[in-house]
Amino acid sequence: MSKNNTAAVERLEQIKQQLNLSPSPMSLQAPKDMEKERSSASFNIDVLSHFWMGGKDKFDRRKLAFDFIEKDPELVVQSPRNILEFGREEMREYTMGQINRVVRLGREIKDKEFLEDISRAVILYSESFALRIGVHEALFRNVVQMLGNKQQQQDWVENVDQFRIIGCFAMTELGHSSALRDIETTATFDVETDEFIINSPNITSTKWWIGMAGQTATHTVVIAQTIIHGKNVGLNWFIVQLRDTVTGKVVPGVQAGDVGAKVGHQGVDNGWIQFHCKRIPRTNMLSKWVTMDRSGDFQPAPNPAVMYATLIPERFSLVTITLTLVTQALTIATRYGVVRRQGSKNQQIMDYQSHYVKLLPAISFMYMVQNSFKTLDDQFAILTAGGEMDPLVYLNHMGDMHSISASLKGLSGAYATEILEICRRSCGGHAYSAYNALGNLISDFGVMTTGGGDNVVLLQQAASYLLHCFNQKLEFDDYPELKYQSATHYIVRAKELLKVKTWPVNVIADATKDFALIEEALHAILVKRLNSIRQSLSEGASHNDLLLESVRVAELHCAAFLFSVNARQFSSLTGSDLDPSVQRIMRQMTALWGLHILRVYGDQGYMEGFLSPKQMKDIEKEYLAQLCKSMRYEVIGLTDGFGLPDFILKAPIAKHDGDIYQAYFETLLQAPASTGVASYHAKLIKPLTEKFENK
Amino acid sequence: MSKNNTAAVERLEQIKQQLNLSPSPMSLQAPKDMEKERSSASFNIDVLSHFWMGGKDKFDRRKLAFDFIEKDPELVVQSPRNILEFGREEMREYTMGQINRVVRLGREIKDKEFLEDISRAVILYSESFALRIGVHEALFRNVVQMLGNKQQQQDWVENVDQFRIIGCFAMTELGHSSALRDIETTATFDVETDEFIINSPNITSTKWWIGMAGQTATHTVVIAQTIIHGKNVGLNWFIVQLRDTVTGKVVPGVQAGDVGAKVGHQGVDNGWIQFHCKRIPRTNMLSKWVTMDRSGDFQPAPNPAVMYATLIPERFSLVTITLTLVTQALTIATRYGVVRRQGSKNQQIMDYQSHYVKLLPAISFMYMVQNSFKTLDDQFAILTAGGEMDPLVYLNHMGDMHSISASLKGLSGAYATEILEICRRSCGGHAYSAYNALGNLISDFGVMTTGGGDNVVLLQQAASYLLHCFNQKLEFDDYPELKYQSATHYIVRAKELLKVKTWPVNVIADATKDFALIEEALHAILVKRLNSIRQSLSEGASHNDLLLESVRVAELHCAAFLFSVNARQFSSLTGSDLDPSVQRIMRQMTALWGLHILRVYGDQGYMEGFLSPKQMKDIEKEYLAQLCKSMRYEVIGLTDGFGLPDFILKAPIAKHDGDIYQAYFETLLQAPASTGVASYHAKLIKPLTEKFENK
Repeated sequence: MSKNNTAAVERLEQIKQQLNLSPSPMSLQAPKDMEKERSSASFNIDVLSHFWMGGKDKFDRRKLAFDFIEKDPELVVQSPRNILEFGREEMREYTMGQINRVVRLGREIKDKEFLEDISRAVILYSESFALRIGVHEALFRNVVQMLGNKQQQQDWVENVDQFRIIGCFAMTELGHSSALRDIETTATFDVETDEFIINSPNITSTKWWIGMAGQTATHTVVIAQTIIHGKNVGLNWFIVQLRDTVTGKVVPGVQAGDVGAKVGHQGVDNGWIQFHCKRIPRTNMLSKWVTMDRSGDFQPAPNPAVMYATLIPERFSLVTITLTLVTQALTIATRYGVVRRQGSKNQQIMDYQSHYVKLLPAISFMYMVQNSFKTLDDQFAILTAGGEMDPLVYLNHMGDMHSISASLKGLSGAYATEILEICRRSCGGHAYSAYNALGNLISDFGVMTTGGGDNVVLLQQAASYLLHCFNQKLEFDDYPELKYQSATHYIVRAKELLKVKTWPVNVIADATKDFALIEEALHAILVKRLNSIRQSLSEGASHNDLLLESVRVAELHCAAFLFSVNARQFSSLTGSDLDPSVQRIMRQMTALWGLHILRVYGDQGYMEGFLSPKQMKDIEKEYLAQLCKSMRYEVIGLTDGFGLPDFILKAPIAKHDGDIYQAYFETLLQAPASTGVASYHAKLIKPLTEKFENK
Repeated sequence: MSKNNTAAVERLEQIKQQLNLSPSPMSLQAPKDMEKERSSASFNIDVLSHFWMGGKDKFDRRKLAFDFIEKDPELVVQSPRNILEFGREEMREYTMGQINRVVRLGREIKDKEFLEDISRAVILYSESFALRIGVHEALFRNVVQMLGNKQQQQDWVENVDQFRIIGCFAMTELGHSSALRDIETTATFDVETDEFIINSPNITSTKWWIGMAGQTATHTVVIAQTIIHGKNVGLNWFIVQLRDTVTGKVVPGVQAGDVGAKVGHQGVDNGWIQFHCKRIPRTNMLSKWVTMDRSGDFQPAPNPAVMYATLIPERFSLVTITLTLVTQALTIATRYGVVRRQGSKNQQIMDYQSHYVKLLPAISFMYMVQNSFKTLDDQFAILTAGGEMDPLVYLNHMGDMHSISASLKGLSGAYATEILEICRRSCGGHAYSAYNALGNLISDFGVMTTGGGDNVVLLQQAASYLLHCFNQKLEFDDYPELKYQSATHYIVRAKELLKVKTWPVNVIADATKDFALIEEALHAILVKRLNSIRQSLSEGASHNDLLLESVRVAELHCAAFLFSVNARQFSSLTGSDLDPSVQRIMRQMTALWGLHILRVYGDQGYMEGFLSPKQMKDIEKEYLAQLCKSMRYEVIGLTDGFGLPDFILKAPIAKHDGDIYQAYFETLLQAPASTGVASYHAKLIKPLTEKFENK
């Protein structure tokens, strides 16, 4: 323990001696409640947590990695210091320190898999670390890997992997976010010197929000309008050096700086960059899909869409981040919910319908998405074919892949925002303490709804694809030939589904037993909504007039896809390799998710006359009074299943053992200047109050 | 300008010289777009802003106050310092400095009304100031005023008004938030010494979250279980000294400290307090409603509810804070929305349906609430009768008043959260910059949904009251006699409304012209929903099983109340003293609000078979393609109407003149360490990157 830490511990002990920290009936009850809740799960929690992680082997490895980082002061802040106290400067430095440590470990640890596990564990601990290392390892590296030719990969990738250069991703500009078409940065070919001249022609062309550009990156990939012999040949990616790799100073022709205070991600040095006629070799234009020779003869990519292909894996990785943050918030809210008691019968607050009915579908959503990744990964693997992709296969599938990734990012982003707010409110006032981590999770998450593709735009694009498929089917009986079963597959049955006038279910409980009934309803509602939109368009409505309706259809489409993937696996209780208790709880969550969608998107069904008032009322009743209620005592088991240790969660009110009150109080006492006379007392308070005459 | 400021300005100029800040077509277009939008409002913006403020006189006075504070460095942070950069310590001190300044101004400025205006202007500028001064002037003072006897008022109120003491409000405890029944702090009467002994018996009894208790308050009012001659006679309020008024140290028998890092309100020193058998004179028990003589003969209040009477005005003041924060967010989002262009036709982003359809009802909601305050104030004035309240009148109305204040706090809190998120997303990535103020507004607002009465609990209580009135009416044909027309008045017609099976409207546009049709629909849906809940209860469902349904009914009830109040005033275009253009736009907003409710709570009508699928579809169409669309070009006028100057908004992307890009860039450049080599470069970056061999 460092000298500072010893002093802090001593200070804490001194303060504690002056306080009454004796237990109360309430504080003594909390751990008992937690134990009881944990034992009331109907399933084997350990097995569920292995399932969540994708196998016991992976779970055990993650556990080893957690144990390793927990004690490492360069990777995890050691008590009594608290990472949730860190200001911008401290957090920027600490996060770079984590990266530095991981790189050094890479030279010490021979087991590359373990090293990868360590990095993933730190990602769970700090979203700033996740984003910052992600900019280098995913965004920068992927662009070089996916858009660079063999020579370029050879020149750069090893330097990236060894962190001899630190890369960033210069796409967005002050005036232009995801609308790449209008990017203003230019790359002009100078045939005389065989160079490109990268330039920021005006204020709005300044590259903006670029992660790691603020203080760290030595290099960047830049997307720019490419001008060759006076003609704009479109957007291309270029590798440009930003900073001297020894001095850290910006190189001539480059200006860059830090964006300063952000809402979250204090550990990430987002920055801005200006290029002032910065010259780079022609060979720095990434040239897997495009080519240009010495004379400036430019061959464009077969499809400009490939230039943004990296955005698809980015979008999936945003969904992974969403799960990381939201599972933490859900664990915190759920644990607090079972140990906190309040109300006329001093009941656990989790007993209130408003509590468990909001948390349970959210928890189920996490499992639905997590369990869909395998399907999506398999699909994406067909596209990339281990880096050896067939351009034709790739292009044929890009629309479909874009559609599902866009709608998943959109739906999960929108629902995650809601869930985080639910979690925050579930913890009452104590969520307002920064030490209970929810504020930090929410701040860090915030950018996910607009970054990496604005949610509305993405959902609109997904809806356009759906509408396109629907029109093709209706008009030409055509449906794209794909190498996997697409999320849009139900459109094949569009005509048949349109004929189904109402949902032929009298007892809602039947549908939670026979998932095909729910799936059929969702698909019928989807084609009916698509048909209504098609009709409005034919009656002269503009796409913009139907924007919000389209967005909602795209959300429902994705929600239904998640249901279908899980329903396939969990429609029956038998015939699976899974532990029967886990199979059963996954089945219950799938049923809950199905009914949740029908309830939330019920308006889509009743506007089409497909769901009747009675069915809506019965769905509400079955959902609230049966499904959710029957799962009330599963909440701790289900969130334990996420496998998140206390040091990852950071929130004293969410301690695994339920013994929360003293831990929470002590966390507060450790805050700098938590006790004693305020530094500004003599200047600002005393002059007022010293006039008081005590009687 | 101070020396520091001069240096900062010079540094800024140096950086700027190295940058290309030349205008672009986009940056030049922005102010033109703003001007065009402003001139396209169909109404007189000035008159609307007077109306918003409650008259031209009030508007002019507010303007004078703004002008006064804008240049005062103790009240408003002067550029290039930026209040949105302030950390906890700096913000705690600055906020106390504002209070100190206001107190000093109180001695200089003879015009008390102007002084009040100044304070209100600073409240708009800083929510931390608002909360901190509110704890003293509203919470502490109100408790003494409303619950203290004449002598106690005489002893304390003048000291409060002169800030010779600084008061706080010790209600919530670590283990107990709004559920006062279970409060653990005790006040035990010692008949021998004629004193009360205030004590915190254990850890969970620690007073928690107490504003101003962290560093500032010299005194507090404490709510505690009152033990007299060994018997608990219930909760009472006591005045207790916390800190020495000269040294600022906690007095013997008291321990108090700061809660440290919070999600928002960095300027408020929320704290915890423990009492260790702290003795206070018997006369410090507030005794307007209760009395106790020297011997310990205790007479309780006629109704224990009076002890929480202060919570009703507190709740209204939370709604005021909500308007303060949300109007700022809406102004920021709207202004940015009209100057930002993006998309295939490089259109203003406000042109997207997803933009204006989300902002317009939110803007209208602000006007609906603001314009309802007069009605609510009038009603509350009947209760308090200028401090000389008739206890019987007061008690007769408390249930009703509690119900409307609770549902208004609940509804506005829930919708405000949504609106803030809408505003955040409307600004895309640039909302993620702390300098654009939205993050700060959202953080500060956060606590409003759980503080001052948890939203779910309040809405549930409001619903219980509705159900009670409904049952009384149905069973005994009884309806409470009140001195004003209550929000529940429609229940008088319950039986008649239950008989209306469907909404007799074929053309939705008719309803936006005849507000009675909307009002009738809302009231019919409400009684039908109450009836369904009543029926479920009679069939054996528990109140908890119907919790979420009840909450939704309470929300709809309040939304309908807001519609009714405004519909009364704006149902016709003539016969009003208002400027006709303002009358017309208020009428349009009322229509929009009415249809908005029918759309959002349409499920409530549909489940009851009252609204048909066709009506639901038509409502959607009329709302989206007619009402909202027709008001698209009013957005700048409507948000200008809130009358918020740039220095209050703080966000460069929301500048009144629309010239946003350079202001935004310069704000970033002013951040400490925005350019240059990172302080941790040599330690953490160089060791990695110096190994790069440049080719």
